[in-house]
Amino acid sequence: MTPQNTPIPDVQNSVDTRQLAINKVGIKSIRHPVKVQDQSVGIQHTIAVFNMYVGLPHNFKGTHMSRFVGTAPVSGVQSLMDYDVTFIGDINGGKVTTSVKVVVPVTSLCPCSKKISEYGAHNQRSHVTVTAKTNDFVWIEELVRLVEDEASCELFGLLKRPDEKFVTERAYDNPKFVEDMVRDVAARLNAEVRVDAYVVESENFESIHNHSAYALIEKDKTLA
Amino acid sequence: MTPQNTPIPDVQNSVDTRQLAINKVGIKSIRHPVKVQDQSVGIQHTIAVFNMYVGLPHNFKGTHMSRFVGTAPVSGVQSLMDYDVTFIGDINGGKVTTSVKVVVPVTSLCPCSKKISEYGAHNQRSHVTVTAKTNDFVWIEELVRLVEDEASCELFGLLKRPDEKFVTERAYDNPKFVEDMVRDVAARLNAEVRVDAYVVESENFESIHNHSAYALIEKDKTLA
Amino acid sequence: MTPQNTPIPDVQNSVDTRQLAINKVGIKSIRHPVKVQDQSVGIQHTIAVFNMYVGLPHNFKGTHMSRFVGTAPVSGVQSLMDYDVTFIGDINGGKVTTSVKVVVPVTSLCPCSKKISEYGAHNQRSHVTVTAKTNDFVWIEELVRLVEDEASCELFGLLKRPDEKFVTERAYDNPKFVEDMVRDVAARLNAEVRVDAYVVESENFESIHNHSAYALIEKDKTLA
Amino acid sequence: MTPQNTPIPDVQNSVDTRQLAINKVGIKSIRHPVKVQDQSVGIQHTIAVFNMYVGLPHNFKGTHMSRFVGTAPVSGVQSLMDYDVTFIGDINGGKVTTSVKVVVPVTSLCPCSKKISEYGAHNQRSHVTVTAKTNDFVWIEELVRLVEDEASCELFGLLKRPDEKFVTERAYDNPKFVEDMVRDVAARLNAEVRVDAYVVESENFESIHNHSAYALIEKDKTLA
Repeated sequence: MTPQNTPIPDVQNSVDTRQLAINKVGIKSIRHPVKVQDQSVGIQHTIAVFNMYVGLPHNFKGTHMSRFVGTAPVSGVQSLMDYDVTFIGDINGGKVTTSVKVVVPVTSLCPCSKKISEYGAHNQRSHVTVTAKTNDFVWIEELVRLVEDEASCELFGLLKRPDEKFVTERAYDNPKFVEDMVRDVAARLNAEVRVDAYVVESENFESIHNHSAYALIEKDKTLA
Repeated sequence: MTPQNTPIPDVQNSVDTRQLAINKVGIKSIRHPVKVQDQSVGIQHTIAVFNMYVGLPHNFKGTHMSRFVGTAPVSGVQSLMDYDVTFIGDINGGKVTTSVKVVVPVTSLCPCSKKISEYGAHNQRSHVTVTAKTNDFVWIEELVRLVEDEASCELFGLLKRPDEKFVTERAYDNPKFVEDMVRDVAARLNAEVRVDAYVVESENFESIHNHSAYALIEKDKTLA
Repeated sequence: MTPQNTPIPDVQNSVDTRQLAINKVGIKSIRHPVKVQDQSVGIQHTIAVFNMYVGLPHNFKGTHMSRFVGTAPVSGVQSLMDYDVTFIGDINGGKVTTSVKVVVPVTSLCPCSKKISEYGAHNQRSHVTVTAKTNDFVWIEELVRLVEDEASCELFGLLKRPDEKFVTERAYDNPKFVEDMVRDVAARLNAEVRVDAYVVESENFESIHNHSAYALIEKDKTLA
Repeated sequence: MTPQNTPIPDVQNSVDTRQLAINKVGIKSIRHPVKVQDQSVGIQHTIAVFNMYVGLPHNFKGTHMSRFVGTAPVSGVQSLMDYDVTFIGDINGGKVTTSVKVVVPVTSLCPCSKKISEYGAHNQRSHVTVTAKTNDFVWIEELVRLVEDEASCELFGLLKRPDEKFVTERAYDNPKFVEDMVRDVAARLNAEVRVDAYVVESENFESIHNHSAYALIEKDKTLA
């Protein structure tokens, strides 16, 4: 463990003695906006999926993945996060209904695993999906923030080592079952007067299983 | 933390005071073999993907997911794990070449996160893929075992609480970078004389990012 | 065009003069049941996805794809078709509800394209999905047959040339809009007393666009 | 069939007597660029996937799908087509290699089906993929055009009835096996001096089967 106020160890930079070079190592499936010059119109905007790899010589233990991108909560380096958003509009007998759905990827850390283990706790990426029928304008960013506040920890596009220490410890301090995730988000949506009805789901891509844990709460506040 | 030889706490079974019932909670996307009776032939065998949910009353904190299935390293309960396997055969000028590819889902726990944090360490599900050109018969199970031995921890279809404690602590005791995973599997494949050539890849679905860490080593032992 | 009772031309078998050999040609993504021998239990049953290719010398125009598998409406050769099926069970306050969902891939041929064109008509693979809440036992095969009867033509795992002539002409004789597909299946489900409620959807993967045409009818017969 | 110079029939607009209203009918999974206003930066550009549906009263046979978007070869109405593009860059020992990969969706119409049938011919959407290692700048649009020129017919985002007549007849006049597609594109790439090496693949999502027909040609022009 790291004493406070001492330099943060650089594990990746240590020597490797296995005599095995790595052909490709890096980051895979990161989404980022790009501009493409086309032959006729000029510039087109789109979203690209990047894979970026280097070859690693046999004597290096690891590569610093953060150098591929450039973030975050402690270091202050900025990066982007991507969210899948759906807008749903419906006109029925002249009545307009609008809903918004956003998938927020977060970290979840298991309270049971933390409680029963001498040390460590299994944690994983989770997708928290909020589908909200709204009666007034709500920014996507408000829904994202609301979900990220209730997770074990939010995700980042890129983390330097002081940031990685922060998110690791924050998740461990803040364990949540899949049931806790949907209840804590539901409580926030119950208090949000611009939301008339909602479905909140969480799917945890369990790090100890090859399947997911899943929970769902739905509520129509306009009934009773 | 849990002292040894004392009863393992049952966190799911504790009382919840948030007054929020959960419509559905359970396990999602678990694969299992099934038999289906058809109208003409009799019985057909296939692989089903199961989602199994219960409604959870407001006063319960959580559900025991393991009761949905039936496992594992400490409790001895048995369950199934699923692996995607590809067989590749080629005849070129009369010469037969056969390869086998298996995707082994495992747990990886980050050595950097463990080292720099006061407590905890981020961990996640990873897919380790081995594609091996073989000169003699190799069981799929041998390749799976070889990969699982080199992971932070293997996955299970189902874990009771003593099992969950075991896998959590084992992963924490056994941290691996994506680079370590491919090197340690490569070292094993180098020593396996029935394998003439291989590609080993690891994709870690990072619990702190919305993208993956990835590494690849390939080697043709018949060259030089 | 082919006069009746004369030999069916063999286009694939004609000579090619482009001087270009083909590295791989064949069929891709065909699903078939297989048995796999394992190291411990003996035999496991699963569903494999096959790709089967040959190299084609420069002087041959094409390969006979049907030889890769072995069918069908005119020739009488048998083959398998695969369907994705979902069973949904729900117990709510002691009341059991069961639904079945089946995705039936079929051919659709556009009536507008046929009507307005001098010759030919665009056609494509379509997915017709029926989700039915049942009050009595219904075979999956009954739902599949019901849908296939209402399509421009059903699909086959494999077709010899007389079969291919039959399905091409049958689809042309039997054009259907996406609207026709869902209406004709809905009419059949309205007449089926074992079905209490249903959703019927058709998605046509248009051969002239890069998007789909889609239609949906839902009905709960227990209401009014 | 339609005599030339007479009004094109409007099949969708005819009367339907089945007494079945359609809940939703329209177009599904069409990609289009959009601008989204965000809370902090201002405007973000992204690519959205649209589903657009109307309810259709029981007495109408069909809806005019083209009204959902706005195209094309005969009518001159303009629409967008979407293509998946991959750029691959590699630096090895100081040597830079760049490749570009583009997936071009087209129509393919089967020559065998046309030849052996009294009328009609099965046709379907196909994906032609070109991966080209280039020694000089090549516009993506040049590769797309080259592929579309060699297909039975190119696809369009939207077609009015005169356009639909044109593409239906053009495809029927221009039948291509999957083997023809890759050979005809390969011949064009052989003649393109800015391309040093290539792989051309075609996957035809057969309208009469539930699997694909597939072919591949690869060539490295720098060898011999």
